[in-house]
Amino acid sequence: MLISRRELLYGVATSYVNSAMPALSVPQETKSSFGINAARLRRRLEDLSVHGRPAGGTFADGVSRVTYSDADAGGRKYAMQAMSEAGLKPRIDPAGNIFGARAGLDGSLLRILFGSHIDSVPNGGNFDGDVGSMSAIEVMQTLEENHVVTRHPLEMAIWSNEENEVGSAAAAGGLQEGALKRVYNGIPMEEGLRRIGGDPARLAEARIAQHSFCCYLELHIEQGGMLEKAKIPIGVVEGIVSIDEYDVEIRGFANHAGTTPMPERRNALLAAAKLIEVVQEVVTREPGRQVGTVGQLQVFPNAHNVVPGLVKHSIELRDLSAEKIARLGDEIQKRAQEIARGTGTEIQMKRVDHDPPAIADPEIQSTIEQAAASLGLKTMRLPSGAGHDAQWMARLAPMGMIFVPSAGGISHSPKELTAWQDCANGANVLLQTILSVDRR
Amino acid sequence: MLISRRELLYGVATSYVNSAMPALSVPQETKSSFGINAARLRRRLEDLSVHGRPAGGTFADGVSRVTYSDADAGGRKYAMQAMSEAGLKPRIDPAGNIFGARAGLDGSLLRILFGSHIDSVPNGGNFDGDVGSMSAIEVMQTLEENHVVTRHPLEMAIWSNEENEVGSAAAAGGLQEGALKRVYNGIPMEEGLRRIGGDPARLAEARIAQHSFCCYLELHIEQGGMLEKAKIPIGVVEGIVSIDEYDVEIRGFANHAGTTPMPERRNALLAAAKLIEVVQEVVTREPGRQVGTVGQLQVFPNAHNVVPGLVKHSIELRDLSAEKIARLGDEIQKRAQEIARGTGTEIQMKRVDHDPPAIADPEIQSTIEQAAASLGLKTMRLPSGAGHDAQWMARLAPMGMIFVPSAGGISHSPKELTAWQDCANGANVLLQTILSVDRR
Repeated sequence: MLISRRELLYGVATSYVNSAMPALSVPQETKSSFGINAARLRRRLEDLSVHGRPAGGTFADGVSRVTYSDADAGGRKYAMQAMSEAGLKPRIDPAGNIFGARAGLDGSLLRILFGSHIDSVPNGGNFDGDVGSMSAIEVMQTLEENHVVTRHPLEMAIWSNEENEVGSAAAAGGLQEGALKRVYNGIPMEEGLRRIGGDPARLAEARIAQHSFCCYLELHIEQGGMLEKAKIPIGVVEGIVSIDEYDVEIRGFANHAGTTPMPERRNALLAAAKLIEVVQEVVTREPGRQVGTVGQLQVFPNAHNVVPGLVKHSIELRDLSAEKIARLGDEIQKRAQEIARGTGTEIQMKRVDHDPPAIADPEIQSTIEQAAASLGLKTMRLPSGAGHDAQWMARLAPMGMIFVPSAGGISHSPKELTAWQDCANGANVLLQTILSVDRR
Repeated sequence: MLISRRELLYGVATSYVNSAMPALSVPQETKSSFGINAARLRRRLEDLSVHGRPAGGTFADGVSRVTYSDADAGGRKYAMQAMSEAGLKPRIDPAGNIFGARAGLDGSLLRILFGSHIDSVPNGGNFDGDVGSMSAIEVMQTLEENHVVTRHPLEMAIWSNEENEVGSAAAAGGLQEGALKRVYNGIPMEEGLRRIGGDPARLAEARIAQHSFCCYLELHIEQGGMLEKAKIPIGVVEGIVSIDEYDVEIRGFANHAGTTPMPERRNALLAAAKLIEVVQEVVTREPGRQVGTVGQLQVFPNAHNVVPGLVKHSIELRDLSAEKIARLGDEIQKRAQEIARGTGTEIQMKRVDHDPPAIADPEIQSTIEQAAASLGLKTMRLPSGAGHDAQWMARLAPMGMIFVPSAGGISHSPKELTAWQDCANGANVLLQTILSVDRR
């Protein structure tokens, strides 16, 4: 049965206070009179940071909570303890995702799902994923402490292995065939998954049916510098960008750097240099937030006294519009062939990966804006240039994301930093957005 | 005692036929009426090629006669057998160099030294070094068979480990401190040197005193494409170029390729691309045979989804004029700082090595031209962009080099090829040059 997004988003009753408990009133259409416990949120982020902290380090030294490692297992254990404190009974699905459900008043309504992840890149920071995960627990605990029962059931998720797009991808049925056979951080992912309580043989049971939940919400750090630069505390994500990834192979001719006159050279690295500049030029010459990056490059034979005969490099293009990056890719391809002719090289540029954009539901975007406004917090709409678990959930139901500022735009680094007040603001906006979605 | 180059070059008597033998007359100021045995020269090049040939391969598959390897030892044994056939008694000096002397008529004259090497790069060709070495033997054997005794004593050399500048450098006192401690091809060079009959402890005894020989001559393949392009069989080397080598370090800031807007980036690889183009532009915008190469480059962290934070690369500049490459280096340095300002990066460009030029003696250049002309062979003057044993000998006495064409300018490759006729022409020009030097 197909259910329209509109039907999923808007229920009929309103959330109300659990009648069995002494309760605060929850006013309609305005923010609740209660908020999250900022001190507890900070404490949990600090406690969690111990799992994967470099030996002898402090919070400022960041974290290596690489998926399936002991640090990851320790962090997950800590998160599940915190979920229990929040009144939840954590369960682990076969993909290693941790869920905690909270009943709603109306059994006929679909659940509101929200969460993030706690695994990190090697030498990562203490905010990427952690802020959204600890805030999800904080939201659940705040509701519990204030004896509020929503109309919709609520469910929080801590997705497993986000950095390799495994947990939420498996839930969305998007995990690539054979992905778990891959060795990561020294062990096959299948074995790693078993270590954290998953079951690779039963992965299909981790699938979440399309339209089986009301919507998905995720609070995350921006990982860019737009909010900080604009001095705006809350970002309303328009969507997660589409990514086109290309492999480029430039074939010249390796020859002696002393004996080959300049006009005779077929220099693959000179051609690559020209192409790197073309990527920059094509991506920046029109307005918009599209980005283009040559991040990986290898030279062969890579000797100071040999004219490079072969260069392999990546090109990555990102924008909310898949059409725009396809067009930019075509333009770069055309210019690459001109460079090949001009340098006596052959240039092969092949698209090797395409991630479609995951557009945030427009009505959830408005709901987040109103939730922030009710707390006196300014907002700015912006794309997410990075991938998130939310992109997989967007395949199943309406999706919305809340961003909080990253100091200096730095991420995937021990220097990653989001001010405690910004973390608390984000958690409160998540809480108010959930209550607002629940009311409508 | 300082002896002028002119005194060294020109003796007083003239070479003449060994009175104990039936003899051909050797006319003054024109070519001898005899020449080298082209078929034997070819056979020796083919026989030598077996030492280091890839298993199951043919002559066309090139050679890996890497210094100190079993193939090198085998090749050296073969060369010494051939030297014996040519009437020489090979001796090995402590640096592993092989010498073969032939007495002259006038004990007061300094010897004429000539030779080349037979070690190769891994996956090299059958002509680099081999042509000069087998031709030196061929010249000796031709004189022997024709019962010719020169006025000057003659000595041929097969220098050891040319590809790492060891044998001739040691003879010239230019071997770097600790160079033999280095591991090459899996073994410390010291141990390797012992394997081929050298003695690292007695290396000082390999020194050849300045002005202790008349001059040094070397026949070598061009390793470039100028002679072939100009359809000229003999190159007269003007000198071996000066080399300036720079290490460049470009520091930007590694950041997420999805979340870092284009104007915020400090992209080290974009800066490197601009600098690679500047090297090309600065080197090619004025006339001359100078070359400039960025051959080695590394990107950090080198991930497709990270804006490069650090790039390290080489810059190598070569020309006969050390002043010219110093000036070009200064210009590139200046432009590098402009690029740094424009890209928000820091660029450090440091000169890490400087080889002075080794200029060929002008009178020997003329002598080679006349020798070639006497054989009806056209000549062209050209610089050697590659280093040779001759550059070390130029520190001790007047030096001259004869080049023969390399098909397609290809070298250090199994595809390296010099036509048999060109090899024979080169050997004959070497023979006539030696006789001409001897006569004057």
